[in-house]
Amino acid sequence: MKILLNGCKGRMGQAIIAAASGSDLDIAFKTDMGDNPSQYIKDCDAVIDFSFRDATPELAKLCAQNKKPLVIGTTGHTEDQRKEILKYTGDIAIVWAGNYSIGVNLLNYLTKIAAEILPDSYDIEIVEMHHRFKKDAPSGTAEKLLKIAQSVRGTSDDEVVFGRKGLVGERPQNEIGVHSLRGGSVVGDHTVIFAADGERVELTHKAADRKIFAEGVLKAVKWVKDKPAGLYGMEDVLGLK
Amino acid sequence: MKILLNGCKGRMGQAIIAAASGSDLDIAFKTDMGDNPSQYIKDCDAVIDFSFRDATPELAKLCAQNKKPLVIGTTGHTEDQRKEILKYTGDIAIVWAGNYSIGVNLLNYLTKIAAEILPDSYDIEIVEMHHRFKKDAPSGTAEKLLKIAQSVRGTSDDEVVFGRKGLVGERPQNEIGVHSLRGGSVVGDHTVIFAADGERVELTHKAADRKIFAEGVLKAVKWVKDKPAGLYGMEDVLGLK
Amino acid sequence: MKILLNGCKGRMGQAIIAAASGSDLDIAFKTDMGDNPSQYIKDCDAVIDFSFRDATPELAKLCAQNKKPLVIGTTGHTEDQRKEILKYTGDIAIVWAGNYSIGVNLLNYLTKIAAEILPDSYDIEIVEMHHRFKKDAPSGTAEKLLKIAQSVRGTSDDEVVFGRKGLVGERPQNEIGVHSLRGGSVVGDHTVIFAADGERVELTHKAADRKIFAEGVLKAVKWVKDKPAGLYGMEDVLGLK
Amino acid sequence: MKILLNGCKGRMGQAIIAAASGSDLDIAFKTDMGDNPSQYIKDCDAVIDFSFRDATPELAKLCAQNKKPLVIGTTGHTEDQRKEILKYTGDIAIVWAGNYSIGVNLLNYLTKIAAEILPDSYDIEIVEMHHRFKKDAPSGTAEKLLKIAQSVRGTSDDEVVFGRKGLVGERPQNEIGVHSLRGGSVVGDHTVIFAADGERVELTHKAADRKIFAEGVLKAVKWVKDKPAGLYGMEDVLGLK
Repeated sequence: MKILLNGCKGRMGQAIIAAASGSDLDIAFKTDMGDNPSQYIKDCDAVIDFSFRDATPELAKLCAQNKKPLVIGTTGHTEDQRKEILKYTGDIAIVWAGNYSIGVNLLNYLTKIAAEILPDSYDIEIVEMHHRFKKDAPSGTAEKLLKIAQSVRGTSDDEVVFGRKGLVGERPQNEIGVHSLRGGSVVGDHTVIFAADGERVELTHKAADRKIFAEGVLKAVKWVKDKPAGLYGMEDVLGLK
Repeated sequence: MKILLNGCKGRMGQAIIAAASGSDLDIAFKTDMGDNPSQYIKDCDAVIDFSFRDATPELAKLCAQNKKPLVIGTTGHTEDQRKEILKYTGDIAIVWAGNYSIGVNLLNYLTKIAAEILPDSYDIEIVEMHHRFKKDAPSGTAEKLLKIAQSVRGTSDDEVVFGRKGLVGERPQNEIGVHSLRGGSVVGDHTVIFAADGERVELTHKAADRKIFAEGVLKAVKWVKDKPAGLYGMEDVLGLK
Repeated sequence: MKILLNGCKGRMGQAIIAAASGSDLDIAFKTDMGDNPSQYIKDCDAVIDFSFRDATPELAKLCAQNKKPLVIGTTGHTEDQRKEILKYTGDIAIVWAGNYSIGVNLLNYLTKIAAEILPDSYDIEIVEMHHRFKKDAPSGTAEKLLKIAQSVRGTSDDEVVFGRKGLVGERPQNEIGVHSLRGGSVVGDHTVIFAADGERVELTHKAADRKIFAEGVLKAVKWVKDKPAGLYGMEDVLGLK
Repeated sequence: MKILLNGCKGRMGQAIIAAASGSDLDIAFKTDMGDNPSQYIKDCDAVIDFSFRDATPELAKLCAQNKKPLVIGTTGHTEDQRKEILKYTGDIAIVWAGNYSIGVNLLNYLTKIAAEILPDSYDIEIVEMHHRFKKDAPSGTAEKLLKIAQSVRGTSDDEVVFGRKGLVGERPQNEIGVHSLRGGSVVGDHTVIFAADGERVELTHKAADRKIFAEGVLKAVKWVKDKPAGLYGMEDVLGLK
């Protein structure tokens, strides 16, 4: 299977090349800023995009014109860019996920199940830790876990707290707490706690190496090869629906 | 709803009485060794048994004759006793579980899902901790988690290790490790670890108070009230199938 | 050894009575609001106070007049009350601690040592979890751990954060994060994390039963019996200096 | 400061070279099997040995003859080799440690303090996790932690268990449990648990990157430069005595 990788020079591009070497996937065509992917598009079986948000719409168009499936890892698209990219899901299969690690996607799935099964008397708290250089909080993965919990519980954004200080009073049942720890070189830990009277259930993911994201991307590109046109997530790739 | 509780003087019997007070369940009839439940059976809606293994078969027969559903928490039955009790599942609904806590049953369920979704390259290790007075290892709950993992992975009993010491060599992929910590007054902690190259998923339950088991029993007895004859587990009560 | 316990009807008073039964300590005299401790003071060997802040100064005066050592667990004193109580440390030995558990006091001590030994490149984060009914955050114990870390590092109050949200930027080296989780019936968990490039050291205390505080009080009252006049903390009782 | 590194081609040798680049240490002379360190010995300020056990005695002799301090990270020496190396501690300063990470040495130190302060009623359990390729159990670091706990408690080797299975009976107070988890690519986690009636203290170290060992070696070599002849450990380098 021949892959065109757009964004080959970035950190994730390099990780994908490393993960593919020794696998049955051939990153046959590598492009980055200034290169023209159109000269390779006909000869590849699928396209991976970890480039820059402004580059994705045009690349998606190229894929649609040539009926090549696409896996998108690029982030930060504007609403307009997002809409344009989604248009092409009528022509080709596109996998588009916020996090390609198998473990994190499993954590998302198990969090949804746990939140659905446990009664509302199980208080939900989310804790994440990342390295000291991370500039935003909470992490995108913690935000996704929060969205999942909010959706099951019907929790409004006003009921979410990102820390507690002072005389905050007893914890309202519908509250969700999100705690962002920063320090050292931690790649990424996430825990969802369900705490009730007398017991706790805790679901944890610990990332130790960024290559897990690259391996998830390769899994996605293998999976998407013969899929019908449409928009897919990692939960589809992993069969979590 | 009027309940007949057999084994009312035991630790779990007392916990059930405490949990029921203030709920909409009435533990109307309380019996223990030497008492005769048959005088109350007609007036109750359901029966809970946390007594002694030798008492369960006769109690099940009494329930079958009077068409009263039964929740069994008694343990240690012989194979013959087990078979006799199961005969009555043709007449009445019986809930029979090794652990009635909601959290532990959720952990069982999530462990099954995780083992099914994750590839075999995710090494499974199980860790449990209990108080210093516990005489057997591993805990019944850890054994159940092990059985679930073995069943999904097709791991034979020979491939399970209960500790490691000396030059054991590299870890075989199909191995499952089970580790029983003992100390202090710990009510019961269980963690299932799935460890791969670059990431870990950990599923944890922490019991802090034995009343969680009593509350699960009450949930089971409410659920079983109008169910058709048959054998049920807590996974049925919780809708985990 | 005969003890006078002031505040015998409160939750901690009851826990102290329970912990003393079966020990070699005799809670010979029990008083609470409305009672007069002065009639028993001559016949006791030491006094424990877990009453109300307004009652402590007078009780301390009574102890000083009768040369009886005092262990204070009452909290919330005003600055004036505090000053008056401290006057009597010239006459008698007083143990006055915020938390009487051995484990928590050990955690305080180890946190101080770790902060002193590790270079400033080890980022400090403090995490605590308590039950849903706790009204203030962070816990008194977390505040004490924070004070210890601040004191060693020279961290100002402005450099302490109690949660992170939004574009907070890279973590300043001198920052300390304090995270208060709330949920279920958790008695009290505290963890101090030292995170560096490539490694983490984590020091944790988990309280499962409030009786550990009662047992620490009994340890303190035995220890203080023949001590010279002065103010002592649990670090003195435990020999942590 | 000019360093002679013997064993420059090994995994740790490479890590030391990487850690030194950008520091004020100059790994001026690099030797490995087949090379002759004697030609460089006069021009260096100190020597680091991460080679093979058979090479260390001769290297130590060379250092002694030239009055150059030595840091030894090589392991697996026979008793005879060990004795010969120790002879030279009369001539030069030698730092010889089983683990050069600052965090692990701090964990050793805190474990000793905690074991000394806590009464024997705090049950000790040690848990470690390493990657699936590790062939021996427990890890050298866990063995060191065990030795520390045994030494404080006076626990014989017969009272140490490396797993529990079957009807083991209640936990004897003097028992120490050591549990070796294996899985994935875990660099090395170690936890010492002190569990009592009602509370737990847990001391944890998590290694995420082998460079922490290299950085400890560099710290040791800077420290040893002007020290008098003698045998030193990382506890001396870190001032933990």
